[in-house]
Amino acid sequence: MVTPSSDSDLTRIMLGVNESSIKGYPHASISSKSAFDWTLKKIIRSNTTGFKLLFLHVQVPDEDAFDEVDSIYASPEDFKDASHKDKIRGSHLLEYFVKRSHEIGVACEAWIKKGDPKEVICHEVKRVQPDLLVLGNRGLGPFQRVFVGTVSEFCVKHCECPVVTIKRSADETPLDPVDD
Amino acid sequence: MVTPSSDSDLTRIMLGVNESSIKGYPHASISSKSAFDWTLKKIIRSNTTGFKLLFLHVQVPDEDAFDEVDSIYASPEDFKDASHKDKIRGSHLLEYFVKRSHEIGVACEAWIKKGDPKEVICHEVKRVQPDLLVLGNRGLGPFQRVFVGTVSEFCVKHCECPVVTIKRSADETPLDPVDD
Repeated sequence: MVTPSSDSDLTRIMLGVNESSIKGYPHASISSKSAFDWTLKKIIRSNTTGFKLLFLHVQVPDEDAFDEVDSIYASPEDFKDASHKDKIRGSHLLEYFVKRSHEIGVACEAWIKKGDPKEVICHEVKRVQPDLLVLGNRGLGPFQRVFVGTVSEFCVKHCECPVVTIKRSADETPLDPVDD
Repeated sequence: MVTPSSDSDLTRIMLGVNESSIKGYPHASISSKSAFDWTLKKIIRSNTTGFKLLFLHVQVPDEDAFDEVDSIYASPEDFKDASHKDKIRGSHLLEYFVKRSHEIGVACEAWIKKGDPKEVICHEVKRVQPDLLVLGNRGLGPFQRVFVGTVSEFCVKHCECPVVTIKRSADETPLDPVDD
């Protein structure tokens, strides 16, 4: 890949990405895709060599794991196995973003972390120090937000870098706006 | 100016700018300058023909006007005169941003509105529909925010476009962080 400027010269944009709650594995959520498309179209534009994209996917430890047939832990090996499955799942999600970035010619990096998304994102911002954090947002009303909580609101308040949240367009919003 | 693409093809970034509270007329506030510099350095970069900057300066109607010697209204003409003075003051502020944009070669527009900054900014976003709103922010702690209020927090919540707020760097922050 052509990189005329050193990494520190590039504008480094971090994107928090997650799985779709309706389309299932390994599709990216509508709001993650919206945030990615907005960044490409409105910020990077034709200047593909001036930016580097940093894709962070935070996996929430699955509290319902014991309900799933394939997640019964009978030996220490089973834990390793579950962790391995999570990694594959996450890497398939990131593959979508990395593949598209490479096709366009934008430098990128992608990685997976486990934990509470809002806290992990703020922690990674502190560690990686991007110039901008772009997050997708489902555009929920105040009533829905109370129950769902929004990662983006927390990050706007607490992350140590400029943060922009991108709402889904109206025609991409599912019937139940909590879906994504 | 070279504009290879039509206006609707450009990424239109609105910047809310205001006067410095310590340096006085006609200096731009530290946070307005930080927001402008960040936009040039991190977003526009060398791609000067891909963007258009929209500078909005909101003038707050001066409630203390009667305390100022040169603002005693004795006839209807005096009101016109005061309004004229405000316009000149505002245009000098905008001149700084327009001049720098022209030097760099970025298309721009600038205008003045009167009213409550947070409400006027949201109203202008609705009317002008920029792709991104960039606002400076003094980076006040929760204690100071209670008394000062922040325009940017309101805009992040209520403006109908993506909003990013840029804090001043630590070395640019005056002794009293409420100053700007």
